[in-house]
Amino acid sequence: MYRPEIKVLDCTIRDGGLINKWKFSDEMVRATYKAVCDAGVDYMEIGYRASKEQFDPKEYGKWRFSDEDAVKKVLDGIELKSKLSFMVDIGRVKEEDILDAKDSVFSMCRVAVYLKDIDKGIALADMLMSKGYETSVNIMAVSTNLEKDIEEGLEQLAKCKVPYVYVVDSFGSMYSEDITFLVQKYQKYLPGKTIGIHSHNNRQLGFANTIQAIIDGSNILDGSVYGIGRGAGNCPLELLIDFLKNPKYNVRPILKLIEDHFLPLREKIEWGYLIPYMITGGLNEHPRTAIAMRKTEKKDAYADFYDQMTTPEPL
Amino acid sequence: MYRPEIKVLDCTIRDGGLINKWKFSDEMVRATYKAVCDAGVDYMEIGYRASKEQFDPKEYGKWRFSDEDAVKKVLDGIELKSKLSFMVDIGRVKEEDILDAKDSVFSMCRVAVYLKDIDKGIALADMLMSKGYETSVNIMAVSTNLEKDIEEGLEQLAKCKVPYVYVVDSFGSMYSEDITFLVQKYQKYLPGKTIGIHSHNNRQLGFANTIQAIIDGSNILDGSVYGIGRGAGNCPLELLIDFLKNPKYNVRPILKLIEDHFLPLREKIEWGYLIPYMITGGLNEHPRTAIAMRKTEKKDAYADFYDQMTTPEPL
Repeated sequence: MYRPEIKVLDCTIRDGGLINKWKFSDEMVRATYKAVCDAGVDYMEIGYRASKEQFDPKEYGKWRFSDEDAVKKVLDGIELKSKLSFMVDIGRVKEEDILDAKDSVFSMCRVAVYLKDIDKGIALADMLMSKGYETSVNIMAVSTNLEKDIEEGLEQLAKCKVPYVYVVDSFGSMYSEDITFLVQKYQKYLPGKTIGIHSHNNRQLGFANTIQAIIDGSNILDGSVYGIGRGAGNCPLELLIDFLKNPKYNVRPILKLIEDHFLPLREKIEWGYLIPYMITGGLNEHPRTAIAMRKTEKKDAYADFYDQMTTPEPL
Repeated sequence: MYRPEIKVLDCTIRDGGLINKWKFSDEMVRATYKAVCDAGVDYMEIGYRASKEQFDPKEYGKWRFSDEDAVKKVLDGIELKSKLSFMVDIGRVKEEDILDAKDSVFSMCRVAVYLKDIDKGIALADMLMSKGYETSVNIMAVSTNLEKDIEEGLEQLAKCKVPYVYVVDSFGSMYSEDITFLVQKYQKYLPGKTIGIHSHNNRQLGFANTIQAIIDGSNILDGSVYGIGRGAGNCPLELLIDFLKNPKYNVRPILKLIEDHFLPLREKIEWGYLIPYMITGGLNEHPRTAIAMRKTEKKDAYADFYDQMTTPEPL
């Protein structure tokens, strides 16, 4: 038995790009999109949309911008079965950077926003909806907010027409009970909206927390191929697809994609369960300190890193 | 708030030995035991006990046998803060291989048994209890049994004095709902006994399923350092220790042990989340086919392996 409302969104290139500045080869992006379509995945978030005044195209690969023309060129000849999505951050994109949906290759835009900026996020979502896109608001790092502030933000969101709102475990710090608490709260405050889940894998709970969110009623689920993503990465798409019972999903194309592309990539760039990310996840902190230490000679000095992270600084 | 009844059992050397025929260096076993003690872990299962008539000591390392003298020699000078355990399989050990507990360095013995052999397992557990050991019965591969047979086995166990009975997810095929179903069933049929959990990590659910078992009332929990174990391995001890709130537990010695010993070992022998183990887990099958394919040149031919495992053989 399955829940036909459930949709899966692949964020492999968008979230994976946080590791390599979105410098994926065209061949890899084509192969990923093709496999995602063949696997029956509903959406693929192929990158961010961002202003070239703020991000230098010499420094960042094309999926930092996800230009309409670039997408069309790279995906040329592939039937666009999975809907395309891009992500925007508040303050990093201008209205003129975004076509009307009817003229665009994209169907969905997702707004990533911290709770303190929720009103800016809502304004951006309103603009995207006025252009005809399916739109979500993804509240990042919600594990760091007080309950009263979360409720106030959700009250604002309830007044907005945005159909999708995501619970995002940015730091990989949540246990299943936290997922239940938040998904139920979002549902209570946002009647009629679809609640999404975007998890991180710092403590090997990305997949488990996604299952928990499904049990609690989430109907839009993020995953990435072989769990690629910044730091510990995300819920592995192959596990999620294999779990869901809807016959439209098929895990085999994702397994082949891992074999052909993501296993070789993992030899070159790093993501996944590593002790420094476990430590930042346990402390409910941004992984930036762990990412930085992984670039030094002391990248495996776990005990020292633990001491450094858990020793209170003098006030 | 924590549950003081909860005990943790480290099975690093015992389960890890399934990969390398228990050929760990004495230095590594000493370092592991010391770290396990310093972390406050309640029990360490240092190996199997087995008959040397059945297993050639030239082929297998000393932790296949866990002789009293070998253990004392390797742990010489270390205060024995964590209780020591060994595991036995039915038919692979003789009564004369086992000292009385009062003369032994060991406190606990665990009996691993398939449901079909439960009466043999109970007889072995009775013998071990008569010698004075804390004893458990671990019902392996219970995910492959019919409910009526599980209930019949539990009825037999209810009549036996053994204080610990384990839910074992041998194939890493269980989701949290399966854990809840089994832990609740074991509790219902085995009043007064402590229910244990031993999980495998084929689908990155080893830790999550252990948490679920805790929620459902399990009070003895297995973990292994960095998740070492056959195939996909076990619930990572560092995650479990970091999760538990009892102040007697301290994760730092385990992190240091990983850094010094298990990261280098992982370069030499393989365990953890790999697609072939995900495939066997999803099919509720023993990992032996996956272990075999990982030793061939086609070890990363995931799609072929998936086809082979999912194509029905002619009847």
